[in-house]
Amino acid sequence: MRHVTVVNGPNLNLLGAREPDTYGRLTLDDINIILAEKAAAWDARCAFYQSNSEGDLVTAIQNAAKSDGVILNAGAYTHYSIALRDAITAVDTPVIEVHLSNTAAREDFRHRSVIAPACRGSVTGFGAMSYVLALYALTH
Amino acid sequence: MRHVTVVNGPNLNLLGAREPDTYGRLTLDDINIILAEKAAAWDARCAFYQSNSEGDLVTAIQNAAKSDGVILNAGAYTHYSIALRDAITAVDTPVIEVHLSNTAAREDFRHRSVIAPACRGSVTGFGAMSYVLALYALTH
Amino acid sequence: MRHVTVVNGPNLNLLGAREPDTYGRLTLDDINIILAEKAAAWDARCAFYQSNSEGDLVTAIQNAAKSDGVILNAGAYTHYSIALRDAITAVDTPVIEVHLSNTAAREDFRHRSVIAPACRGSVTGFGAMSYVLALYALTH
Amino acid sequence: MRHVTVVNGPNLNLLGAREPDTYGRLTLDDINIILAEKAAAWDARCAFYQSNSEGDLVTAIQNAAKSDGVILNAGAYTHYSIALRDAITAVDTPVIEVHLSNTAAREDFRHRSVIAPACRGSVTGFGAMSYVLALYALTH
Amino acid sequence: MRHVTVVNGPNLNLLGAREPDTYGRLTLDDINIILAEKAAAWDARCAFYQSNSEGDLVTAIQNAAKSDGVILNAGAYTHYSIALRDAITAVDTPVIEVHLSNTAAREDFRHRSVIAPACRGSVTGFGAMSYVLALYALTH
Amino acid sequence: MRHVTVVNGPNLNLLGAREPDTYGRLTLDDINIILAEKAAAWDARCAFYQSNSEGDLVTAIQNAAKSDGVILNAGAYTHYSIALRDAITAVDTPVIEVHLSNTAAREDFRHRSVIAPACRGSVTGFGAMSYVLALYALTH
Amino acid sequence: MRHVTVVNGPNLNLLGAREPDTYGRLTLDDINIILAEKAAAWDARCAFYQSNSEGDLVTAIQNAAKSDGVILNAGAYTHYSIALRDAITAVDTPVIEVHLSNTAAREDFRHRSVIAPACRGSVTGFGAMSYVLALYALTH
Amino acid sequence: MRHVTVVNGPNLNLLGAREPDTYGRLTLDDINIILAEKAAAWDARCAFYQSNSEGDLVTAIQNAAKSDGVILNAGAYTHYSIALRDAITAVDTPVIEVHLSNTAAREDFRHRSVIAPACRGSVTGFGAMSYVLALYALTH
Amino acid sequence: MRHVTVVNGPNLNLLGAREPDTYGRLTLDDINIILAEKAAAWDARCAFYQSNSEGDLVTAIQNAAKSDGVILNAGAYTHYSIALRDAITAVDTPVIEVHLSNTAAREDFRHRSVIAPACRGSVTGFGAMSYVLALYALTH
Amino acid sequence: MRHVTVVNGPNLNLLGAREPDTYGRLTLDDINIILAEKAAAWDARCAFYQSNSEGDLVTAIQNAAKSDGVILNAGAYTHYSIALRDAITAVDTPVIEVHLSNTAAREDFRHRSVIAPACRGSVTGFGAMSYVLALYALTH
Amino acid sequence: MRHVTVVNGPNLNLLGAREPDTYGRLTLDDINIILAEKAAAWDARCAFYQSNSEGDLVTAIQNAAKSDGVILNAGAYTHYSIALRDAITAVDTPVIEVHLSNTAAREDFRHRSVIAPACRGSVTGFGAMSYVLALYALTH
Amino acid sequence: MRHVTVVNGPNLNLLGAREPDTYGRLTLDDINIILAEKAAAWDARCAFYQSNSEGDLVTAIQNAAKSDGVILNAGAYTHYSIALRDAITAVDTPVIEVHLSNTAAREDFRHRSVIAPACRGSVTGFGAMSYVLALYALTH
Repeated sequence: MRHVTVVNGPNLNLLGAREPDTYGRLTLDDINIILAEKAAAWDARCAFYQSNSEGDLVTAIQNAAKSDGVILNAGAYTHYSIALRDAITAVDTPVIEVHLSNTAAREDFRHRSVIAPACRGSVTGFGAMSYVLALYALTH
Repeated sequence: MRHVTVVNGPNLNLLGAREPDTYGRLTLDDINIILAEKAAAWDARCAFYQSNSEGDLVTAIQNAAKSDGVILNAGAYTHYSIALRDAITAVDTPVIEVHLSNTAAREDFRHRSVIAPACRGSVTGFGAMSYVLALYALTH
Repeated sequence: MRHVTVVNGPNLNLLGAREPDTYGRLTLDDINIILAEKAAAWDARCAFYQSNSEGDLVTAIQNAAKSDGVILNAGAYTHYSIALRDAITAVDTPVIEVHLSNTAAREDFRHRSVIAPACRGSVTGFGAMSYVLALYALTH
Repeated sequence: MRHVTVVNGPNLNLLGAREPDTYGRLTLDDINIILAEKAAAWDARCAFYQSNSEGDLVTAIQNAAKSDGVILNAGAYTHYSIALRDAITAVDTPVIEVHLSNTAAREDFRHRSVIAPACRGSVTGFGAMSYVLALYALTH
Repeated sequence: MRHVTVVNGPNLNLLGAREPDTYGRLTLDDINIILAEKAAAWDARCAFYQSNSEGDLVTAIQNAAKSDGVILNAGAYTHYSIALRDAITAVDTPVIEVHLSNTAAREDFRHRSVIAPACRGSVTGFGAMSYVLALYALTH
Repeated sequence: MRHVTVVNGPNLNLLGAREPDTYGRLTLDDINIILAEKAAAWDARCAFYQSNSEGDLVTAIQNAAKSDGVILNAGAYTHYSIALRDAITAVDTPVIEVHLSNTAAREDFRHRSVIAPACRGSVTGFGAMSYVLALYALTH
Repeated sequence: MRHVTVVNGPNLNLLGAREPDTYGRLTLDDINIILAEKAAAWDARCAFYQSNSEGDLVTAIQNAAKSDGVILNAGAYTHYSIALRDAITAVDTPVIEVHLSNTAAREDFRHRSVIAPACRGSVTGFGAMSYVLALYALTH
Repeated sequence: MRHVTVVNGPNLNLLGAREPDTYGRLTLDDINIILAEKAAAWDARCAFYQSNSEGDLVTAIQNAAKSDGVILNAGAYTHYSIALRDAITAVDTPVIEVHLSNTAAREDFRHRSVIAPACRGSVTGFGAMSYVLALYALTH
Repeated sequence: MRHVTVVNGPNLNLLGAREPDTYGRLTLDDINIILAEKAAAWDARCAFYQSNSEGDLVTAIQNAAKSDGVILNAGAYTHYSIALRDAITAVDTPVIEVHLSNTAAREDFRHRSVIAPACRGSVTGFGAMSYVLALYALTH
Repeated sequence: MRHVTVVNGPNLNLLGAREPDTYGRLTLDDINIILAEKAAAWDARCAFYQSNSEGDLVTAIQNAAKSDGVILNAGAYTHYSIALRDAITAVDTPVIEVHLSNTAAREDFRHRSVIAPACRGSVTGFGAMSYVLALYALTH
Repeated sequence: MRHVTVVNGPNLNLLGAREPDTYGRLTLDDINIILAEKAAAWDARCAFYQSNSEGDLVTAIQNAAKSDGVILNAGAYTHYSIALRDAITAVDTPVIEVHLSNTAAREDFRHRSVIAPACRGSVTGFGAMSYVLALYALTH
Repeated sequence: MRHVTVVNGPNLNLLGAREPDTYGRLTLDDINIILAEKAAAWDARCAFYQSNSEGDLVTAIQNAAKSDGVILNAGAYTHYSIALRDAITAVDTPVIEVHLSNTAAREDFRHRSVIAPACRGSVTGFGAMSYVLALYALTH
């Protein structure tokens, strides 16, 4: 059985209520339940973590070093947190970057991901399905 | 009676002692007392919050969603915190950006505000009066 | 009693009719009447000037050198008129930059203000209230 | 019968004498006569205006709000006059940008037109024919 | 009788169905019929060519060297095809750049035309009328 | 049963032999067989197309308008083909961008995708699994 | 006897009072008197013109076409007035650019002169002596 | 005996007629005859290919994988065809970039070669001699 | 006896295990022991602090205001934390920037230090010796 | 009597023969003779120095510290020699930058002078007269 | 018999020992011997010069004005020595730029050659063969 | 006993007299005496070299190849001498970059060091102590 850590960054605790045209109407709990069910079907188990703090997310990535894979939606920190990038590089566990919305179709400052070069791959623009695809990749 | 949340960011806890030629000699407590008095005169009540942590400020903005308005001096985070910008966009409460000094007359990196596009308006360069003008706007 | 000069730049003579979703439905006369009333309440007197010509606005700032303060909405000249900036620097009177709309949330070329570094402070995004806040700052 | 206003900007009063290799040997009066004749043939009437002053051109665009269309050669102001752009946006009358020379084949600073986004369309590089094509578009 | 070649680039075969708010509801055949009629009236004859392939368009421009003029809507290749630009420079026939939409009012990457400096002139933003104006210029 | 078109761009016909450290040792046929099997399991059918020609790829996207979804690896055209982007925008079928390698970790010029804003989403960096994930998203 | 026109731009009417550390304590009249004396000694006659208006300065350059030379301190317009540049190019009279202060040692935006390429030469940084050197060049 | 493939890109089929001041008066056939003669002298044999199509050139490079060397004048594609660059990287055969004119002395956009980093070396500015030098390098 | 505060930023708690080719095999505790010994020899005492959180590091710098000097390895925050820079400026204690690796020889985004201008000096590229040199400078 | 040092940089030893359309037909000796005569008339004495070596020019500026003024034509070093700029700043003697041609009207890379901010003033574009004007300024 | 001057710039005296993976194992003397032999075969004679000093190289180019051609490997000065560029332009002798390594495949700062526009042509990336090709071009 | 070469670049021969607020009041001889004493204490011997010439400094670095380490203050050449960088890369001896002043807190053009990536490490901002720290690093 594989252990997957799902890490969500700033403002993702507001999912469902926050700009639903962009981010959809599912709450973070809704997404986590879907992931837990998929994990059960694919012989894996998920642990969930969310924080608004860059430093806490750095620590969360460090702590996930023992799991078999990390699904990371770094939210706004995607675009400037070199500290997160360094944390991803520092651990051997594969980290997959996910985004709910198609960031390439939004504001310019959302086009650059400073963490992407340190990640294994990225899945962008499928809503909650982005997480499911990442989980599929880590378990197949 | 309107409820206004006053949020101050990094290093503003040092006001009065820190570079007084730029930021003035009033402490943050001095400014808060002035605001509380003005609020009383203008049929409003202020709550005050300060933190050096970006994540805590994001949470503070989220928590202020129930108040009638937010006065935000994001300090240095003004110039790079997309996480704060997202938090401001995520809540319906009007947020007003304030700065003590005239940032346009200082170093280049202080000219760009990444949070301004998400705010209702901004007041810059009047010292403690910047906060008072923002409170006036929220209460008139 | 303080004397305040209110200077408006290009196309602001069209206020009320011009792009009301961006600039509101008040005419420039409506705003001036509001300012005159506020000035009366705050022991001040306003003089009003509008021109579409950069050179005339430069001269207007020079002529306002004897007043106690200037409220300046430079309109489109905000973004390129170094001549206006030099005029503001050349006089000792404090000049306050105001904008009706939140320029930071509009086109890229409206994000840069070449006059801001020469002004005392700026008030942006509050509609007609921007002028009132500037007047409050000059009279309190 | 349609009313068309033809507005010419700085240095276009020198046409015929000024850099004839670039701008041709027709004077502005020559061009206006051609336009008046074409207008007569196409059931329209032209009014003509020229100024070297940016502010006067802004006012001319504002005044042309009642005509059925504007043909505008903004000359050098094409490249930096946001005030003219705002005036074009502020009126409902369609404005057509014209240039005598092919600005794309000249100095770099002539490649950018700040007024083009606010115009209905543009015609560039045909000499006096540029004006005729614009008139054709407004009358057919 | 003048011979004019009308060359259309990628995706213009979809006109009428493709983003009609931007490109209008006329099909490319509709436009060609209009041009053929105008040509008949103006003592000219049009040949029509469309391709999605950059190389085929280069060859089409080379082949049009014997006609009296070319009307070219290079579609997306406008913005990066130096090969097309070189083909235009290589032939003596005057080439006129046309666009249906006002490219200056759209995405940034549509503001730059690499072929414009090699063309005689350009007509932008008039829908099907853009082609007609180009034909007028070539025949008068 | 859903119909999915799989479109591959330039040099992808060399997969398996070309830079295997970057692109893996599977040939394009190998990948297509995997996709066909997955499609059979997920109640879908795949059609496959590869070309080195930008124009042919544009036409392929236009032709795929009747399928239920497109999986597109545009290869090098990802970084500059506005013609492909326009084709994607012109059809209503959802198009998913895939890449074998993690383009964000390679040369600078591979970081920009001009087609991403027109796609529904993108999957990058999982080797052949990138195609599988895209197929999963189109069929679930 | 040579006729020289001395043209001064925006805010130069304030010389002597305006930022004397940068611009010196001589008024514009003082400088003009010095020039008139030098001109008398060097068999020339000066005409003087000052305006804050870009359009009027364009016209002044046009009107100076009959004089034997122009000394131009364009003030802030130096940095963006392509209209002035075009006027200088349009007349055959040699125009010499002068500046009181060493613009290269001041703010970045003062380093670029858009009129310099159209002028015969430039003299920068000598205070009132800059005008005298230009007059020497025109008369020797 | 070594086999060398000579690949020419867009508009090079027009050599001799096209801009002879820049590209010389030799036709492509003239150059090929010179190369064939030199090859005979240097114990090699040349195959020749020209196309205006980027995709066909990509395929030509792929097909040349079995030859001992490629001489490539990519014409305008030099400056933007990442697809060609990828094809060069994908084959093991050494590819030498040649240009007739000194591209560094021409327009800015001709200074950047996106294919150069993938080539073995480059020879620029010697007219037809550029090809001969490349052939010399491949055969000595 | 001098009191020196040693502050380490994000991911430096992983030293020894994290990318040892870049950062060496000493743990942070190893380095601290070396520093404590050197301090004892040079009549000083060190206090040590490490955090992954930007806000906590800001507070740590504020708290170090009473010590005689600060040795700061800000890790990834070096490159974007204006909040840290402001904290360094806000205290009078001299702060010395240190880095284990030669950041100038690594990725582009590591070349810029936003905190360097606020520090007394910097020591870069000597591994653990960087800290020792900084301590030497503070104690001699 | 004032002592003036005239320092000329690289390739200025070729004056008269080198690109006479740009630099004129006077040799450096011709210019020096003119300067010596003017100096005699204006109660001064000139010393002359020329070198192609940046280091020797730095030393020459250092050695000129005892003279009353330096006239410096740094040639190509104007555009990149920060070492020369530092030498100018290091000595108290006023240094005047001169250029024969109007550098602003030439290639882009000649528009930037890295030494200008360290000089007292600059005289550009008057041919040999540039030196004479500089000498006039130093002696009047 | 043709006289060719071979000029080598900074650090090329270390060839053979310096970074042999990049520059090969031949010393500069080895290369010169090869060139002398080839010259003998091709009815030419070579003179050799090497210096680390930019000024001396400028002088060497000036002195080579009487030879029939110059082969110049300017080493690092390639990327910034406008003085060398001016020297090349100042002499009529054709100068050919050569490089041992393929500079386009190395660091960004080696991609720009400021001397290339002044040279007749360039040969890059063939090791010692680069010099031989240049000599071939000058003698055939 | 270790041999250390201390190399100083342009204008450093003026230390003590040159801008003492920036560079301090110690002469270069003063610093060298301090270094010689420290070297004696740390079982090393220093050789000293200073030149204003870039080429001589390149040669000095080459000659220092046999010493055990180099302390290099390249002065202004730090910011543009790729020739020096290449020399540092060409020798195996470790080179340490030092600066007296904190270059990050000065003009923009002093922020970039082109030699830093080739050096072992750098010590910046400690005045004469910068050299001592570098010596400490080379001897401990």
